[in-house]
Amino acid sequence: MKVKVATRILEANERIAFENRKLFNDAGVYVINLMSGPGAGKTSVLERTLSMSAGLRVGVIEGDIAGTDDAERIEKYGAPVVQINTGGACHLDANMIYEALSDLPLHDLDLLFIENVGNLVCPAEFRVGEDIKVMVLGITEGHDKPLKYPLMFQESSALILNKLDLAPYLDVDMEKIKRDALSLNPVLKIFEVSCKTGQGMQEWVAWLRNRTRAV
Amino acid sequence: MKVKVATRILEANERIAFENRKLFNDAGVYVINLMSGPGAGKTSVLERTLSMSAGLRVGVIEGDIAGTDDAERIEKYGAPVVQINTGGACHLDANMIYEALSDLPLHDLDLLFIENVGNLVCPAEFRVGEDIKVMVLGITEGHDKPLKYPLMFQESSALILNKLDLAPYLDVDMEKIKRDALSLNPVLKIFEVSCKTGQGMQEWVAWLRNRTRAV
Repeated sequence: MKVKVATRILEANERIAFENRKLFNDAGVYVINLMSGPGAGKTSVLERTLSMSAGLRVGVIEGDIAGTDDAERIEKYGAPVVQINTGGACHLDANMIYEALSDLPLHDLDLLFIENVGNLVCPAEFRVGEDIKVMVLGITEGHDKPLKYPLMFQESSALILNKLDLAPYLDVDMEKIKRDALSLNPVLKIFEVSCKTGQGMQEWVAWLRNRTRAV
Repeated sequence: MKVKVATRILEANERIAFENRKLFNDAGVYVINLMSGPGAGKTSVLERTLSMSAGLRVGVIEGDIAGTDDAERIEKYGAPVVQINTGGACHLDANMIYEALSDLPLHDLDLLFIENVGNLVCPAEFRVGEDIKVMVLGITEGHDKPLKYPLMFQESSALILNKLDLAPYLDVDMEKIKRDALSLNPVLKIFEVSCKTGQGMQEWVAWLRNRTRAV
């Protein structure tokens, strides 16, 4: 019985995700589901990206259990933003996104970021209608993460390794992170960045521009 | 319907957690459910604690989605350890713990740590039969975490703020973390530590010894 219900919920989610995807396609907006554990730097990646995205019309949906901190940070960059509070739920689902879309000028956007709840596990299981998933890992989280949390690495098209500025002070094996991540997902595109210094962000934004143009 | 099923699962979990608690009480073992987001340093806290716990008989249950890295790290300290692989589940539940207990010499332990899956959300919702919950937050995760992930801070008896050695290189407001955490949970005991240097660990272990004696 338990399994049956879980399947039904996932099926309903898939159906709504498919509807969202059609809306995104019709509007010509490229959609990225941005995921990470708590505090890896998703919002910082968005802030840097927004400041480097001249000519791209970018919107953001912020997902958090509680609070509006992230939406307030994004608003400063002039991007249209909607904050979803999940009220306890550990991930965004397709229906939450569907309900947020009426508050976004979808047809005036080239790119929409959906910043998921900070959680390295559950968000990877729920499609929301995105074109691709991108994940952020703070190198402060340690080099054992890919093999301990394999699904998110498998589901993502790109991995942003953030907090490179702290590398000199950490005992972290960057090569192991990259090797293990690629063993789980050989086509994963990896970016090494510091949102604090801006290092590596140029390459990420260039990749993003190419992707967005491909819509 | 959805709500009804979820309630039933939580009810079943509560019942098994209660059974576990009776087993722990009968064996005279004090049990800590150790939680955090990914890479905050739960296993490092355990390693330091084990190396400073002369005279205390400590056992560990390791919870991970996949892999045995953490159990291997703990085994080096000579502590009895059982690794649970949840196979995708984002938290430990009472039944997983119940099934692991047959592999532990419960009556020969003073203290049992249950290291939960790295996840700042879901583990806080599932009791496993513990005496108390303790959480770890890496200060690299940022000062916005208490208000964004309130439940774990509310459910925990102690908060270990780890990675203090990195403070000079971070823009993190430690006072805000402590203030917000205490606003959610005024009786929360807060420890500021570095598992890398050992700073602050003496106070944590002393507190732990007192707690364990009180069983």
